[in-house]
Amino acid sequence: MERIEGYSSQPNSSFTPGSPIYGYGVAKVLDSGHPDLKAGDLVWGTTYWEEYSRIPAPEGLIKIHHTDVPLSYYTGILGMPGLTAYVGFYEICSPKKGEHVFISAAAGAVGQLVGQFAKLMGCYVVGSAGSKEKVDLLKNKLGFDEAFNYKEEADLNASFKRYFPEGIDIYFENVGGKMLDAVLLNMRAHGRIAACGMISQYNLDHAEGVTNLMHLVYKRIRLHGFSVSDHYHLHPKFMQFMLPYIRQGKIVYVEDIVEGLESGPRALVGLFKGLNFGKQVVDISA
Amino acid sequence: MERIEGYSSQPNSSFTPGSPIYGYGVAKVLDSGHPDLKAGDLVWGTTYWEEYSRIPAPEGLIKIHHTDVPLSYYTGILGMPGLTAYVGFYEICSPKKGEHVFISAAAGAVGQLVGQFAKLMGCYVVGSAGSKEKVDLLKNKLGFDEAFNYKEEADLNASFKRYFPEGIDIYFENVGGKMLDAVLLNMRAHGRIAACGMISQYNLDHAEGVTNLMHLVYKRIRLHGFSVSDHYHLHPKFMQFMLPYIRQGKIVYVEDIVEGLESGPRALVGLFKGLNFGKQVVDISA
Repeated sequence: MERIEGYSSQPNSSFTPGSPIYGYGVAKVLDSGHPDLKAGDLVWGTTYWEEYSRIPAPEGLIKIHHTDVPLSYYTGILGMPGLTAYVGFYEICSPKKGEHVFISAAAGAVGQLVGQFAKLMGCYVVGSAGSKEKVDLLKNKLGFDEAFNYKEEADLNASFKRYFPEGIDIYFENVGGKMLDAVLLNMRAHGRIAACGMISQYNLDHAEGVTNLMHLVYKRIRLHGFSVSDHYHLHPKFMQFMLPYIRQGKIVYVEDIVEGLESGPRALVGLFKGLNFGKQVVDISA
Repeated sequence: MERIEGYSSQPNSSFTPGSPIYGYGVAKVLDSGHPDLKAGDLVWGTTYWEEYSRIPAPEGLIKIHHTDVPLSYYTGILGMPGLTAYVGFYEICSPKKGEHVFISAAAGAVGQLVGQFAKLMGCYVVGSAGSKEKVDLLKNKLGFDEAFNYKEEADLNASFKRYFPEGIDIYFENVGGKMLDAVLLNMRAHGRIAACGMISQYNLDHAEGVTNLMHLVYKRIRLHGFSVSDHYHLHPKFMQFMLPYIRQGKIVYVEDIVEGLESGPRALVGLFKGLNFGKQVVDISA
């Protein structure tokens, strides 16, 4: 049983108002009855949207050992979204040098990392996002080869024909619906799709029908849904991989930090409108 | 350059009227300029819908060495559909003993074999088909645990809840559309779907939209389109596996053989109406 304080990031994608208000957060232990945790330890993992919490089962929390990077990174690039990007790209997409990679919601916490991983591997990388500012971020700061604002594309199929004249090898799927349908038309043989989320569909009464699934057969595509929750055993390996890139500035990470617990609900709703700019974090200890 | 005569099975799924009339057939070589083939050899592979053919590139044909089984089997259980079932089940589905397996179009050339492979592995196996006769075949002759006529099910989701109260681990997909949508609701975590075909969608002007793809993420499902054309190197291993089961009568195979090339078009159209009973074969040498 711990009392902790600290950051709380957005809850995971299955959050619905009225359910217990979990989130991925960073916290400091104030008091602990658990042998592995003592007062002053920093931890990250599933916490609550509150300034002080009692955590009855702290075994799931992960202790923070490296504090030369911003603590908020443990809600993002070094935490759940970072591991999601790492697992999704390296384990699920089976990437190869030079392949053509498309990432939707590319300016988000996961997408921005997947794009940079793909660039490190020598892939051609295009991302979609929902504003000019995000598109500029992808192209000018995160090193994507191309990026486009999906809201300004009247015909997504034509967009893909333009950005991927030879087709897409890997699609990192965060969006679903019409985007997936257009991607399917433009996949290459033996392509892979890592389905990380389908944010365009979560709040619809009736999900959009995807009509081009026959291309999975024609092109022998693997479409693989995954959840980081199955892969936490890879976190130590991931840290060894990730920390040097951060320290050397070879991987850039963009956060959108709002102050105070009271800013949390608006930040959450903003995610579904695309108002966040990078990983949305709520700093509740400022 | 060979002149060959013999069986011709249905063409593959990408056949459209007006295109070159290829099919998977069994044939006897009448004359050959190729060093690996001589008059009298029996072969199977891509042939044409005609009684005598010139095959300009016979390298793709596979020589028949075992004639103690019906020659028509090389259009089916020992040929392309058999290898499709073998690859699709053992390579794509990653099956484990005791898993719960659903097969659509289960009385077809591929489905009936997948079901028997799954039973050999100790799985619980349910198939769908489009007539009472086919359902009886699946349950009484092919050893499926359960089978149902999808045309008599008003609510496929309810059907799956009935046949798979604990959910589906493996779906061998031959149908697409509404069937896939209902299956997705009933898959278990870490399930696998081998997409072999989507016959319900081929002749629609607009494919049915599949709306439950978010379950791929929720349940971390792998949906993998495949084509036997990528796996012909496994055919020798497949023959070693398959022939003993056939000779010992441990795997049963049902064919629907019509006589004469003139019966071909009607048999082809019948496939899309589900009129065939087992693997559709056209015997053009009778």
